[in-house]
Amino acid sequence: MTDVFVDPSVTTGPITGSSKVYREIDGVRVPFRRVNLTNGEHLDLYDTSGPYTDDDAVIDLTAGLRPRSNVIRDRGTQLQRARAGEITAEMAFIAAREGVSAELVRDEVARGRAVIPANHNHPESEPMIIGKAFGVKVNANIGNSAVTSSIGEEVDKMVWATRWGADTIMDLSTGRNIHETREWILRNSPVPVGTVPIYQALEKTNGDPTKLTWELYRDTVIEQAEQGVDYMTVHAGVLLRYIPLTVNRVTGIVSRGGSIMAAWCLAHHTESFLYTNFAELCEILARYDVTFSLGDGLRPGSIADANDEAQFAELRTLGELTKIAKSHGVQVMIEGPGHVPMHKIVENVKLEEELCEEAPFYTLGPLATDIAPAYDHITSAIGAAIIAQAGTAMLCYVTPKEHLGLPDRKDVKDGVIAYKIAAHAADLAKGHPRAQERDNALSKARFEFRWHDQFALSLDPDTAREFHDETLPAEPAKTAHFCSMCGPKFCSMRITQDIRDAYPNGVPDEIAQGMAAKSQEFADHGNRVYLPLAP
Amino acid sequence: MTDVFVDPSVTTGPITGSSKVYREIDGVRVPFRRVNLTNGEHLDLYDTSGPYTDDDAVIDLTAGLRPRSNVIRDRGTQLQRARAGEITAEMAFIAAREGVSAELVRDEVARGRAVIPANHNHPESEPMIIGKAFGVKVNANIGNSAVTSSIGEEVDKMVWATRWGADTIMDLSTGRNIHETREWILRNSPVPVGTVPIYQALEKTNGDPTKLTWELYRDTVIEQAEQGVDYMTVHAGVLLRYIPLTVNRVTGIVSRGGSIMAAWCLAHHTESFLYTNFAELCEILARYDVTFSLGDGLRPGSIADANDEAQFAELRTLGELTKIAKSHGVQVMIEGPGHVPMHKIVENVKLEEELCEEAPFYTLGPLATDIAPAYDHITSAIGAAIIAQAGTAMLCYVTPKEHLGLPDRKDVKDGVIAYKIAAHAADLAKGHPRAQERDNALSKARFEFRWHDQFALSLDPDTAREFHDETLPAEPAKTAHFCSMCGPKFCSMRITQDIRDAYPNGVPDEIAQGMAAKSQEFADHGNRVYLPLAP
Repeated sequence: MTDVFVDPSVTTGPITGSSKVYREIDGVRVPFRRVNLTNGEHLDLYDTSGPYTDDDAVIDLTAGLRPRSNVIRDRGTQLQRARAGEITAEMAFIAAREGVSAELVRDEVARGRAVIPANHNHPESEPMIIGKAFGVKVNANIGNSAVTSSIGEEVDKMVWATRWGADTIMDLSTGRNIHETREWILRNSPVPVGTVPIYQALEKTNGDPTKLTWELYRDTVIEQAEQGVDYMTVHAGVLLRYIPLTVNRVTGIVSRGGSIMAAWCLAHHTESFLYTNFAELCEILARYDVTFSLGDGLRPGSIADANDEAQFAELRTLGELTKIAKSHGVQVMIEGPGHVPMHKIVENVKLEEELCEEAPFYTLGPLATDIAPAYDHITSAIGAAIIAQAGTAMLCYVTPKEHLGLPDRKDVKDGVIAYKIAAHAADLAKGHPRAQERDNALSKARFEFRWHDQFALSLDPDTAREFHDETLPAEPAKTAHFCSMCGPKFCSMRITQDIRDAYPNGVPDEIAQGMAAKSQEFADHGNRVYLPLAP
Repeated sequence: MTDVFVDPSVTTGPITGSSKVYREIDGVRVPFRRVNLTNGEHLDLYDTSGPYTDDDAVIDLTAGLRPRSNVIRDRGTQLQRARAGEITAEMAFIAAREGVSAELVRDEVARGRAVIPANHNHPESEPMIIGKAFGVKVNANIGNSAVTSSIGEEVDKMVWATRWGADTIMDLSTGRNIHETREWILRNSPVPVGTVPIYQALEKTNGDPTKLTWELYRDTVIEQAEQGVDYMTVHAGVLLRYIPLTVNRVTGIVSRGGSIMAAWCLAHHTESFLYTNFAELCEILARYDVTFSLGDGLRPGSIADANDEAQFAELRTLGELTKIAKSHGVQVMIEGPGHVPMHKIVENVKLEEELCEEAPFYTLGPLATDIAPAYDHITSAIGAAIIAQAGTAMLCYVTPKEHLGLPDRKDVKDGVIAYKIAAHAADLAKGHPRAQERDNALSKARFEFRWHDQFALSLDPDTAREFHDETLPAEPAKTAHFCSMCGPKFCSMRITQDIRDAYPNGVPDEIAQGMAAKSQEFADHGNRVYLPLAP
């Protein structure tokens, strides 16, 4: 690979209470996390973790993961093949993985409502789909900067993030060894990898945005596409004429890519080279099937700046660019905010869908308030759940370190878990058929005091068990019909069991009839409650 | 007080970067947390922490806090006095504290849309209001159980919770020393204290719900009212005929109070003594001005059980009871779920307002999914933010330990902060005039690299600073115009400043006109984007 020293230590083996299974579905071999329950049942969950969680995982980071053998490079992009009516190997895998028909996958991709980020040169990745007809996905950002971390740490974070459910990874490294870091990540990543090529381009000008050129940028994109980057954030919507719209904002331009391009446009007083060369860029991406992630360089960086003219002007331009990209057969998703108060969130989705032909929306949170640095995984999980319910296809996580520093291993896990919560809450609200199965299985285990099952079915079995054991560590407490909250005498669930026992044959007719009569009475009063006492 | 040993160690002194100020507003002396900014400005924030955060705090837990001198006992409840047109001392204090007119406070209380939980016997508390016309409030549950913790720990948690913003405290102790624990908490609490009297009543029957009687319960209520409990959860809506509706639920009855009353009803096959004696209970509560918190004993304990017939049947009965309580001059709020998927949340608020004459809604979360034990402060902050935006007046926090154990000091803080986020996000979404001031001040500080100010304005200055310092601990980094995320060469905010510098006199006319023309062109095309290339 390279001769940069990398500490090869990453976490392997199954998640506690689960085992990795590969099921043959419609002729495709698909991985699942199988939760093995103490009552003999099991539940298979969507799995993002790749071979690292295999029971007998043997990982050689210097060799990389075993590539898929069925990558086809000479028939164009997934979008082009979907339009031609082809169900690709990637689509078949995704259909089996998501539990939907392959035709649905093909159709959503053909319409541009879903993307399959799968660079021909990243065969180590297990195909996945981003689109609102499917489970809501989560991206985890990793990457070092000039002042922090090593390649080994970043590879470890990649494995760690996918272990807890990250569906894609973005390598946002900005320091030394950008190329080498990305190489290590790509060769070992079981999920698609995204980048922001302008970051590396800027390193090549020693940090001076005014020295950027189209040629330098283009060569960087080709370098990264050759390596296997699956999707690239391109801030081609930051146009010269939009820059003044940010002057009176509370937080100006907060996107790194956006501010770099704005600085370039201003310095040269000419239109963005990303915009003027967009067609050529499309041709490059089409060759590798790299997916566009059209960046929102003018996204709001504070509640005050949400949904302003600068933001929506850029979004209109992203709509133009979406059409151009698709006309070249390139898959497209659209990046979204940022910081948005709850009552302004849904408008973002509606406008994006209208302007960008329902291209998958990919949002950063948004944070529902600015006032909680160190807890922005929570401020943003609130916004993320709401925007995903409204139709966002993938959520870019925010960690507790947002605004304060780069995430370490703990932050990465905290961010991923918070975002799995948001994504799952949205799946439930959207009526995703598999989502509620898991809630029901966990709640049933909880109600039946199957503690081990409750832990195993949770997003983070280790922490759930650790918290339980802080007060009741002994093994018998794992099967006891009470817990530390109420103590043995006081358990509501035990009392409920007594109630169930009182009605072994179901609800008696006279009680059921009483309820029906009561219900009718309520309706007779115009659904208003009868007031038994004079006021 | 009592001779039970209590460790008198609680946290005192101002929050980092703030000082406690008492401002004279309309003749009332009101406490605020004043954030002192490095640019010479300051921002005064609503403060719940009582004298513990005074600069020169001298606290004697054995003596208790100094009582208010202006408590009037012989003119009835706040509701009765509001109806009579009186602006009480409590209302005047609240108006100054919330920044609204005293007449608004009086009117909302008179209409029953807001409550002021202020037992005449709890003069140590600083008056506050719960109602949807005011800032969204947060309650923190504390209390020991048969298997955990001491009185000293619970007093410490009370002080700790109010330090971080808890507006009320519920003492849910179920173990030994219930009376003494409550006494210590009441005498030292600067916020209203709520309880669930049935818990103590059950201790008196040694945990056997079938041995409960109205007389035993009534005497417990009087005992607690005499001590100064400000509001009491009463599960009077769990009627005999509703119990069978829970039999086929995934998680049956999960409310402790609800299950106790259900067990009693079933054992005696008669109607709940709380329901049949409700008028007498009202008379007792009116004497002290204890506020009802009508409990949702049949709230859903899982996503599967949300918004079901059992839950809504009880809610209709709570509507009946609301009218009865108000006819006795007793203030009322209504408790709500629990576990509810996002798409079913708003219906809860609509129905509560319709059935309960807009009595303040007080909800536990709700959790938007069941699958994340150990992270239920997050699953529920999502639901809490949404339900508060829809009109819930107070949010009962959920800590990371929910479903797993009782919260320790760290959990209490994590729960309070998560819920301050949810409440504040809702205040923003509801257009609360003071809410956005804080976001703007913090974002401005962030944009101007005033790190100390960013920390000081945040919900948790200590953790924000700690996270920042993990990567850049040196003091000069607190004023440096970059941070560890991007490093010095790469800072979007620095670049934005360059952009501002490029337009020192505002946006040039030709650019502004260009935007206007573009905007018009967009409108001319029916708000559809012009596609420059053929597909």
